[in-house]
Amino acid sequence: MLLTTLYIIGITAEAMTGAIAAGKRHMDWFGVMLVASATAIGGGTVRDVLLGHYPLGWVANPQYLVITCLAGLFTTLVAKWVMRYHKIFVILDAVGLIVFSIIGCRVAMDMGLPPLICIVSAVVTGIFGGLLRDLICRRQPMVLHKELYASVAFLAGGMYFGMMYFEVPELITTVATLVVGFVARMAAVQLSWSLPVFKLDDETNIVVAPKESATDTK
Amino acid sequence: MLLTTLYIIGITAEAMTGAIAAGKRHMDWFGVMLVASATAIGGGTVRDVLLGHYPLGWVANPQYLVITCLAGLFTTLVAKWVMRYHKIFVILDAVGLIVFSIIGCRVAMDMGLPPLICIVSAVVTGIFGGLLRDLICRRQPMVLHKELYASVAFLAGGMYFGMMYFEVPELITTVATLVVGFVARMAAVQLSWSLPVFKLDDETNIVVAPKESATDTK
Amino acid sequence: MLLTTLYIIGITAEAMTGAIAAGKRHMDWFGVMLVASATAIGGGTVRDVLLGHYPLGWVANPQYLVITCLAGLFTTLVAKWVMRYHKIFVILDAVGLIVFSIIGCRVAMDMGLPPLICIVSAVVTGIFGGLLRDLICRRQPMVLHKELYASVAFLAGGMYFGMMYFEVPELITTVATLVVGFVARMAAVQLSWSLPVFKLDDETNIVVAPKESATDTK
Repeated sequence: MLLTTLYIIGITAEAMTGAIAAGKRHMDWFGVMLVASATAIGGGTVRDVLLGHYPLGWVANPQYLVITCLAGLFTTLVAKWVMRYHKIFVILDAVGLIVFSIIGCRVAMDMGLPPLICIVSAVVTGIFGGLLRDLICRRQPMVLHKELYASVAFLAGGMYFGMMYFEVPELITTVATLVVGFVARMAAVQLSWSLPVFKLDDETNIVVAPKESATDTK
Repeated sequence: MLLTTLYIIGITAEAMTGAIAAGKRHMDWFGVMLVASATAIGGGTVRDVLLGHYPLGWVANPQYLVITCLAGLFTTLVAKWVMRYHKIFVILDAVGLIVFSIIGCRVAMDMGLPPLICIVSAVVTGIFGGLLRDLICRRQPMVLHKELYASVAFLAGGMYFGMMYFEVPELITTVATLVVGFVARMAAVQLSWSLPVFKLDDETNIVVAPKESATDTK
Repeated sequence: MLLTTLYIIGITAEAMTGAIAAGKRHMDWFGVMLVASATAIGGGTVRDVLLGHYPLGWVANPQYLVITCLAGLFTTLVAKWVMRYHKIFVILDAVGLIVFSIIGCRVAMDMGLPPLICIVSAVVTGIFGGLLRDLICRRQPMVLHKELYASVAFLAGGMYFGMMYFEVPELITTVATLVVGFVARMAAVQLSWSLPVFKLDDETNIVVAPKESATDTK
């Protein structure tokens, strides 16, 4: 099925970006596999734990865990290539983000949860993998600072929920959400769209920063 | 009801302090909402996940999530005011701490858990919001270093459990716990009460520090 | 029973190493108890939450929580001794690692989960305590960088699962796993065995480091 194929592409790409982050922290192979897996399937794991949706996806389907571990280890061999063709991963990451959001929204809808929770479920699934990666690697969490990432997950979740609510056929809903979400994400990357940043110094100087200065947050 | 009203005041105040912490880390609006929500409802979330108490509070009542997100965004507009009238937030935070502790204790009691777990549930509900905030914002976790915070949650949980055990009417128990807990917390802040600090240097010089030096831990 | 006795020894030793880490961060008594407990029973907690295995061990048996808190506080009195006889704790920690792995594997087997998940459950139980300790204390997570720690948990989990699968009597399986796992762990410590480290500079210089340089990762 379309979603499953794209899901596997998504977790593979996310696992590889996780492995790169682990390499920058000089982790051993186990650390690489753990960070790769946390990045790729951590979002779905957090969602399932928050919703009480057991068994977790990778417990029921351990092959996904095998994929993320192997993708992580494989990255140690081809890291130079991964970093050179970084732009391919921006594209694959965008695909993963939308697929994760759609799956997150569906899981919550299948549980009969309220609309807002379905959309929150999409956002959690889309972004918590990257958030866990940054916490384990002790980096500034990217999704809290830069670019329209969570917002795109919100858009994708809302669009999917809305179209399903109005009984648009599932295939059309899925494809439309994928296309719109992907275009929105790539546009955000290309045009450096971002949310306003809330800057506060300890000296009580408050600045709600415009877009330009948001991007040079280190 | 009294507890619900105080709970809403509590999560609003906690969300605003979370937003201030996010602003000090120059997060964007999404980061502000996430840190605000984690601070305000993260304690109850951790408790429910640890106890297997599903659905989580904010999943069953999404309006609480709306409140914390809006309170976070609102804080970006009034941050100067929030920081100037910091003392009001110390008071509201104390109210929130006791209310969260009472709710945490009650949830565990309703599940028929052992007395110690009911009190631990009070402490977890009271402190894990602040702990999550500090982990996401990569700060020294306040509750592990300063002031009688967890201890006040422990006191409130124990008092509530004990009075309910001896079948004191619920309203009296709640009000008494609120008053005693609030006074204890404010006294701890005013008089800089704190637990002894366990200081260990890498050079094996061990000092169990007295109260004075505990407060200047940065 | 053998496993229960060794489990109590294991959580006591882990709690004491957790308390030492808390002392190096100048935490107060509550912080000491929290880090001690997270180190000792955090691995089992994460495993149970991931598998949806409720109630958690320490919720059903609060005495384990009492042990870890008391062990943590006791450590503040005898920290100098603990640090001087550090080697005893390396041994006790090795015992704990294998016991935790065996218990983790058994919990997953009793739930009827697939073989790979049983072994992952062993690894999660064995290592997440130390990982949580390092995250709360904001240290470089040791298990992701150094020595065969997760690998020994993987070996122990796999051996236990395999022997039980082939219907070797449980006592023999447990003792054999304990002996082999313990020897493997002590050999790894003594001989400084470690997994290859994946080093990546921001300047795209990629090095898969040999064993020697892995150990001096700071």
